[in-house]
Amino acid sequence: MHVPPFDVAEFEHRAMRAQRFMHMHRLDALLVTSPPNFRYFSGFDSLFWESPTRPWFLIVPAQGRCIAVVPEIGAPVLSSGWIDDVRSWPAPRPSDDGVSLLTGTLAALPCRFGRIGMELGRESTVRMPLLDFLEVRERLSKFEIVDGSPCIWETRRVKSQAEIAHIRASCQLVSDAFEALPRQVAVGRSEADVCRELTIDILRRGADTVPFIAAASGPGGYPQIISRPGARKLQRGDVLIIDVGATLSGYFCDFDRNYALGPVSAEALGAQDAVWRATEAGIAAAVPGATTTQLWSAMMKVLEAAGMRGNNVGRLGHGLGLQLTEPPSNMPGDDTPLEPGMVMTIEPGMEYAPGKMIVHEENVVITENGAELLTRRAPREMYTIQLE
Amino acid sequence: MHVPPFDVAEFEHRAMRAQRFMHMHRLDALLVTSPPNFRYFSGFDSLFWESPTRPWFLIVPAQGRCIAVVPEIGAPVLSSGWIDDVRSWPAPRPSDDGVSLLTGTLAALPCRFGRIGMELGRESTVRMPLLDFLEVRERLSKFEIVDGSPCIWETRRVKSQAEIAHIRASCQLVSDAFEALPRQVAVGRSEADVCRELTIDILRRGADTVPFIAAASGPGGYPQIISRPGARKLQRGDVLIIDVGATLSGYFCDFDRNYALGPVSAEALGAQDAVWRATEAGIAAAVPGATTTQLWSAMMKVLEAAGMRGNNVGRLGHGLGLQLTEPPSNMPGDDTPLEPGMVMTIEPGMEYAPGKMIVHEENVVITENGAELLTRRAPREMYTIQLE
Repeated sequence: MHVPPFDVAEFEHRAMRAQRFMHMHRLDALLVTSPPNFRYFSGFDSLFWESPTRPWFLIVPAQGRCIAVVPEIGAPVLSSGWIDDVRSWPAPRPSDDGVSLLTGTLAALPCRFGRIGMELGRESTVRMPLLDFLEVRERLSKFEIVDGSPCIWETRRVKSQAEIAHIRASCQLVSDAFEALPRQVAVGRSEADVCRELTIDILRRGADTVPFIAAASGPGGYPQIISRPGARKLQRGDVLIIDVGATLSGYFCDFDRNYALGPVSAEALGAQDAVWRATEAGIAAAVPGATTTQLWSAMMKVLEAAGMRGNNVGRLGHGLGLQLTEPPSNMPGDDTPLEPGMVMTIEPGMEYAPGKMIVHEENVVITENGAELLTRRAPREMYTIQLE
Repeated sequence: MHVPPFDVAEFEHRAMRAQRFMHMHRLDALLVTSPPNFRYFSGFDSLFWESPTRPWFLIVPAQGRCIAVVPEIGAPVLSSGWIDDVRSWPAPRPSDDGVSLLTGTLAALPCRFGRIGMELGRESTVRMPLLDFLEVRERLSKFEIVDGSPCIWETRRVKSQAEIAHIRASCQLVSDAFEALPRQVAVGRSEADVCRELTIDILRRGADTVPFIAAASGPGGYPQIISRPGARKLQRGDVLIIDVGATLSGYFCDFDRNYALGPVSAEALGAQDAVWRATEAGIAAAVPGATTTQLWSAMMKVLEAAGMRGNNVGRLGHGLGLQLTEPPSNMPGDDTPLEPGMVMTIEPGMEYAPGKMIVHEENVVITENGAELLTRRAPREMYTIQLE
């Protein structure tokens, strides 16, 4: 599956979009440190984030081009991309790991509002030693460090056509893999064995990485949906859920499928039907102008009528893009209006008996005409593995 | 390759080891939030860290058992593990995402030193919104939040036999995969194609995940070693480097191999021979009592005699375990004495001509009798792909 790579215009557009929101938030610059935000503005494609040793900094000034302040090990890669101002220091250097270079770079920025936004708030993390953060904050006399995360999430919330194309491609190839999976699912195989084959199939179909895979299984349902696939061997009467986040150029899909090992209880099938219908209701409600909370209500009406006992997930879907989950959340109090270009998961789930959940998930993009499925819709009947 | 899973005694031992160092650092508790530290103390095995929405907290008190303070979505998993005190809140809850529950839990701890250690320093990150961190710090009248990272790294630095067994198994299966790889390497194939096959092979051989793979290629060498494998097609005369971090129960290997596409220049072969000999010197120098800086010196002597121009990596190896890179670093000023049970990478590299590096890497565990290889030693001659 070929998706055209992001071009320079895409990154210029992102910086300009951020600068528009920055002006509204009265920010002279955004300073980002976390992998998804660094990638969003720079295009830097690396798994080197696994090494916690060196911090990386990217500055979006109020006007003009982005500045990368990176350890020397990263300078050749950054310099080969679209950012033309790349500054580096010899790292690791525990006595001053980028602090002076970063502070000097920020201090030289034009100062209008006296405010620099960082990833301080909701669903955000600053990826640098906190002691260094406090020192940078102390040394920046001209600027106050404030929460830039609302501005960052506003910027990233509506996806470009190129971003949507990547998410769609990821959703489609994982849809194919889920449909081919029943051949692997059998009594006596472990969750880990089944998911290893699924991961390999997803890679063969063209995903770049599979950073997230979770699985759970149990008679008629499962108590949780976040564990890595385990050693538990599948039994007759189990429901197996597998949830996958695979990426293309960093863009995630995030959806699950349920598999029944032979006949399962009538209660489990009832819960399956309820979450399937709740998904339908969610998709129908996901129109521009509706809020995430209305989306939640539309799904909850179906789940509650079906006898929902609870749901430890705490929400019924969320934003999706360069991260497995992004704001907003489909839940009470979120109240974010949907806009064309937002990519959302529709994720109703219910505990129908103690320790027995059924959770569904599809991914959609909001368009002028309502929700458009990015995943291939799961059938109403649970995939059932025929046992001898 | 079967490695026995970690048992409860392992986690009890880790907590007690931390408590010994905490006493020396005058800490009443450690509070950790990042995936590797959370896993180190709890055994929690999940890829759900990909979702940035909810913070997770683990407390190691000065005495007694660990306490997990986690979002409800994680409570069933944590409760099935070794930690018997699991507290949870309904998340996401943006108005108070664990802040009150965490603060209340910490406030009830016995206070002797008035100090709680968090991941504030070197090679550490606090995985929670910084605004929430500042609020917790403000509300904790009884305790000061101080840098706990030296204590954490001291605890994790010496590995148990069970940890070493996991790292060794990961090193061995990736050694096997690297040796089988030449079949995949050919002129005209892309770095990405070759590394996709390698990743699949590593999964088939039993790795749980492959969170890190980097590749670079170019005529006689490469300018950097951290990019994800790209679209560049391999050419006659190239050197291809691939660096892999694969895990078993969270424990990484981290080493690379170089492949020559047909004959490469005499200068490239000279650099190969120099880094191979520097690796030998590093392995020989890695004895208990020697320091990381002496290890660096032993390798540098060989590299400088061979005409090293520079090395943007900034050090010649590092600690290894639950993360791809951990302290200490083989470099000037680090001066950490090696102890039996430390797992280190020996990673000499040199730029021998502008933009042309050759980097080698092996993984060793320090024993009473010196360094023991965990990887299968690369041959002195570069793997050369025979071209027609």
